Amino acid sequence: MSEPKVLILMGSPNDMPAMEKAAKTLDNFGVKADLEVSSAHRNPEKTADLAKEAEANGYGCIIAGAGLAAALPGVVAAHTMLPVIGVPLSGGPLKGQDSLLSIVQMPKGVPVATVGIDNTTNAGLLAACILALKYPSVSEKWIAFREEQTKK
Amino acid sequence: MSEPKVLILMGSPNDMPAMEKAAKTLDNFGVKADLEVSSAHRNPEKTADLAKEAEANGYGCIIAGAGLAAALPGVVAAHTMLPVIGVPLSGGPLKGQDSLLSIVQMPKGVPVATVGIDNTTNAGLLAACILALKYPSVSEKWIAFREEQTKK
Amino acid sequence: MSEPKVLILMGSPNDMPAMEKAAKTLDNFGVKADLEVSSAHRNPEKTADLAKEAEANGYGCIIAGAGLAAALPGVVAAHTMLPVIGVPLSGGPLKGQDSLLSIVQMPKGVPVATVGIDNTTNAGLLAACILALKYPSVSEKWIAFREEQTKK
Amino acid sequence: MSEPKVLILMGSPNDMPAMEKAAKTLDNFGVKADLEVSSAHRNPEKTADLAKEAEANGYGCIIAGAGLAAALPGVVAAHTMLPVIGVPLSGGPLKGQDSLLSIVQMPKGVPVATVGIDNTTNAGLLAACILALKYPSVSEKWIAFREEQTKK
Amino acid sequence: MSEPKVLILMGSPNDMPAMEKAAKTLDNFGVKADLEVSSAHRNPEKTADLAKEAEANGYGCIIAGAGLAAALPGVVAAHTMLPVIGVPLSGGPLKGQDSLLSIVQMPKGVPVATVGIDNTTNAGLLAACILALKYPSVSEKWIAFREEQTKK
Amino acid sequence: MSEPKVLILMGSPNDMPAMEKAAKTLDNFGVKADLEVSSAHRNPEKTADLAKEAEANGYGCIIAGAGLAAALPGVVAAHTMLPVIGVPLSGGPLKGQDSLLSIVQMPKGVPVATVGIDNTTNAGLLAACILALKYPSVSEKWIAFREEQTKK
Amino acid sequence: MSEPKVLILMGSPNDMPAMEKAAKTLDNFGVKADLEVSSAHRNPEKTADLAKEAEANGYGCIIAGAGLAAALPGVVAAHTMLPVIGVPLSGGPLKGQDSLLSIVQMPKGVPVATVGIDNTTNAGLLAACILALKYPSVSEKWIAFREEQTKK
Amino acid sequence: MSEPKVLILMGSPNDMPAMEKAAKTLDNFGVKADLEVSSAHRNPEKTADLAKEAEANGYGCIIAGAGLAAALPGVVAAHTMLPVIGVPLSGGPLKGQDSLLSIVQMPKGVPVATVGIDNTTNAGLLAACILALKYPSVSEKWIAFREEQTKK
Repeated sequence: MSEPKVLILMGSPNDMPAMEKAAKTLDNFGVKADLEVSSAHRNPEKTADLAKEAEANGYGCIIAGAGLAAALPGVVAAHTMLPVIGVPLSGGPLKGQDSLLSIVQMPKGVPVATVGIDNTTNAGLLAACILALKYPSVSEKWIAFREEQTKK
Repeated sequence: MSEPKVLILMGSPNDMPAMEKAAKTLDNFGVKADLEVSSAHRNPEKTADLAKEAEANGYGCIIAGAGLAAALPGVVAAHTMLPVIGVPLSGGPLKGQDSLLSIVQMPKGVPVATVGIDNTTNAGLLAACILALKYPSVSEKWIAFREEQTKK
Repeated sequence: MSEPKVLILMGSPNDMPAMEKAAKTLDNFGVKADLEVSSAHRNPEKTADLAKEAEANGYGCIIAGAGLAAALPGVVAAHTMLPVIGVPLSGGPLKGQDSLLSIVQMPKGVPVATVGIDNTTNAGLLAACILALKYPSVSEKWIAFREEQTKK
Repeated sequence: MSEPKVLILMGSPNDMPAMEKAAKTLDNFGVKADLEVSSAHRNPEKTADLAKEAEANGYGCIIAGAGLAAALPGVVAAHTMLPVIGVPLSGGPLKGQDSLLSIVQMPKGVPVATVGIDNTTNAGLLAACILALKYPSVSEKWIAFREEQTKK
Repeated sequence: MSEPKVLILMGSPNDMPAMEKAAKTLDNFGVKADLEVSSAHRNPEKTADLAKEAEANGYGCIIAGAGLAAALPGVVAAHTMLPVIGVPLSGGPLKGQDSLLSIVQMPKGVPVATVGIDNTTNAGLLAACILALKYPSVSEKWIAFREEQTKK
Repeated sequence: MSEPKVLILMGSPNDMPAMEKAAKTLDNFGVKADLEVSSAHRNPEKTADLAKEAEANGYGCIIAGAGLAAALPGVVAAHTMLPVIGVPLSGGPLKGQDSLLSIVQMPKGVPVATVGIDNTTNAGLLAACILALKYPSVSEKWIAFREEQTKK
Repeated sequence: MSEPKVLILMGSPNDMPAMEKAAKTLDNFGVKADLEVSSAHRNPEKTADLAKEAEANGYGCIIAGAGLAAALPGVVAAHTMLPVIGVPLSGGPLKGQDSLLSIVQMPKGVPVATVGIDNTTNAGLLAACILALKYPSVSEKWIAFREEQTKK
Repeated sequence: MSEPKVLILMGSPNDMPAMEKAAKTLDNFGVKADLEVSSAHRNPEKTADLAKEAEANGYGCIIAGAGLAAALPGVVAAHTMLPVIGVPLSGGPLKGQDSLLSIVQMPKGVPVATVGIDNTTNAGLLAACILALKYPSVSEKWIAFREEQTKK
């Protein structure tokens, strides 16, 4: 069986510190995460290619974070069969109200699993929870994490 | 291998027509869906029990839809290890702005995969996409659906 | 007659400084306040137990404060017969617009008495005002406080 | 012991059908409710007098509903020592976003227990729940209602 | 003829620096301004008295500034025949969105002339512009100010 | 002494029924109102001319109503020394949230006296209240109206 | 010289009646308009191709309209060197607040010229105004239209 | 052929640092930009004159930036046949929500090409993209910029 891997995309290098928290979260579940910067608007071909090749490259899930008119998660979802988790980022005057609506209000046919504004930790947790369906090792760690969290 | 099944919860019997669209969507992917009405606020024990027993009852994913101060998806997520998809419903004067924020802005530790307001179709599609990781039959149908949709 | 006591709950240890203001306010009315951290999402059983046992433990009222998708006040109200006062907290990019709607827009059947964003002082005052119905000593101090405040 | 009574105020005769639901709700708990129309802006003296005399007139709690720049609940709270429950009403182009903020965002010192937009039923339930602290007959009915509701 | 005078009211001593700008603006037009702190909620009688006596005390216009659930301008307007100018103040997590709606959305029958959030300078200018209808000396200075401003 | 007259401007013929309520309101105070359609964007010269000539034409006050990006009240205020009352109209998908902000958030130097969304009645009342400073006949009727209203 | 042509794209066949108004508007300026339905999310390749080939196909400008998480205008702009005009459509519970932010809040590097919600007429006019820079025949008609409009 | 030139207008000298970014952006495309401060409200005649003379003065496009009730872009568009690009600026408590709506929600007949809040860089890019229709030198640089950006 393949190793559990998640592709983490972001629209701008400024988003790296926020998105690295998702990678760090996934590390706790034994899930490898690769981070790539690719804007849906400035790098549309690269973005499409990353999305299209993600499954063949062994990723089980994609996390995409973006701010403002955050098209990245939806565009990625348009080009992949994998589950896509969208994280609205708050870097702008509207504090993520724009990116939240740009990500969550997807039209019928192409869903994006949206988490809270700047909540890259929950994006990582959701990816782990989804991969737990397929990877018993992730499932074990997910259950352990949740039980530990409840005890605290 | 188990058959793919999704538990669909809603806070009020008024939400049934909207939530049935999620069940109908899942039917296209060969996924069985069971619908239950259980309010997080009026039926807290029943809600907790449905969530806690969902995995043992063979469900691979839970969809929860609610309006207003929509606590249901988050409360269900608190009581299960399964992926939970939250659907904000617009039945109220604020047209789902309240339920969207009540569902998507989950605190760190317990993620909910949120879809758009009233977008029960996308909730069903997201559940199918997630179950496709585990069930080859769902995966096949998901790929076929997406390719068909693109052609149209 | 029992001594007047209020249970103050919050979703995260970060909320302690804000919620302590409610306790301090209650102290001026001779009302004892106990503070507990218990997340509706991360600690659902503990939260339910605290709510269910509150009345038997001598509390006459519960104050619950939370931020983001603030389910805590509603979940507590679901598990108790006591009046529940909800305080939306502003710790997040949307500055409490999310927690306000998550608390005040409760569905029919389970009310939460909501006060303003971050207004833990008013939460304490409202608890005192409610307990004044039952405890003459609190009533006296409430009247004195209001008259004093008007004079200033 | 006095009989349990609630004073229900509203800013306009147009609000009567909505506010009568609060009275009807209270009737289920054996609580008498008197309804009065008195605008904080058009009838300031009458409003102040109704609030000031409410306690002496045997009311244990006041419910005040208003739309738009809904000053009524706060003005009533300014003139009484009784708990005041505020109900934002949605009759206007902003659908209650204005009345919600006008009621819930009270400054420090004079709290209003706010319920959801147009949720006059919950206003009645909250009044019953508060009066249950003082009146055993209301307490009994409140517990019975909540248990019945959970069973349904 | 009486001298032109404006009464400037505010809900809290914290609002003094903002409201003093209105007084300073009026000074440029030869209009005397008296500043008073009186909360609509904490000092309802004093507020009513200030409003009721304003005309007899020689004021030609009232400016009232408040934050949060800003009832002050409307309550003042309820107790006077003079024009009332309302200034929403932004001191709170919602940055004046609450005070703006609480002031501008007055019900039919009692108007408040609302200016922009924190725009105490424009409140002073509007008062001068209104008093210019009655006082030729203010009219002259208003015209001179506007012409000067346009030239800059 | 001149007769009391108000100029009522609107951006579109569609606004006529709403703005006629302001004229009708003014009629009760013996104030003559002339209605003109002139868009700030489609008829900029006509709009400027109407504003510039209003005072010489005997108007004591201008009421301007507009929807969407409602520039009309501010543009009129830029071209006159008279008090300008702005009425945000709700004809559009955002229900007047756009026109309210476009009118009330005027920059420093040129104030507009803003009333509530669609509240053309209050625009007429505010104009009467302002003209009452200058015209004793209007003042008498304004006092009588307010006293009558309070009695009802 | 080429004939003036505009490509009008929309995300869904439901948007056709709204977008046809843009085509009709352009017809008044002697500009040919071709309408195509292509969702950024359901038909990403077709959308990219339409955008990439637009200039070679003789279009001088693209109008793209979409609702909800309206990625279409930005995605089109990412794939063309032509000016792209974005029209937010209001078909959804949030009445275009989502599509407006999804279109106008583009990140640095790829601009979209956004017009008002549902304002397909202005989209057509803006396209005509832009093409007037290049096509004297359009320029003449644009000037005539604006002068005619001002006279009315 | 004329040299490509853009007129950049702003409502206040405080907006100069933001608007200079648009000029700097245009410089990269060999487009000359002249900056002028002229408030639509404080300097209405100057603003109208600048707009009316822009075309004769050799400008091919106008960029107008303003905050709060940002009438400038619409007023400029009312007085010119040139394309007008509007930039909402965030200097105020509502962080540009007011200026965005004041600019983008133009009524039918006079379009403004709106870019994101504070996105003066995109305003410059959009101007370059529009001028590229007419000036081959700008077109070349626009294509080069976009290709370079995509490669990065």
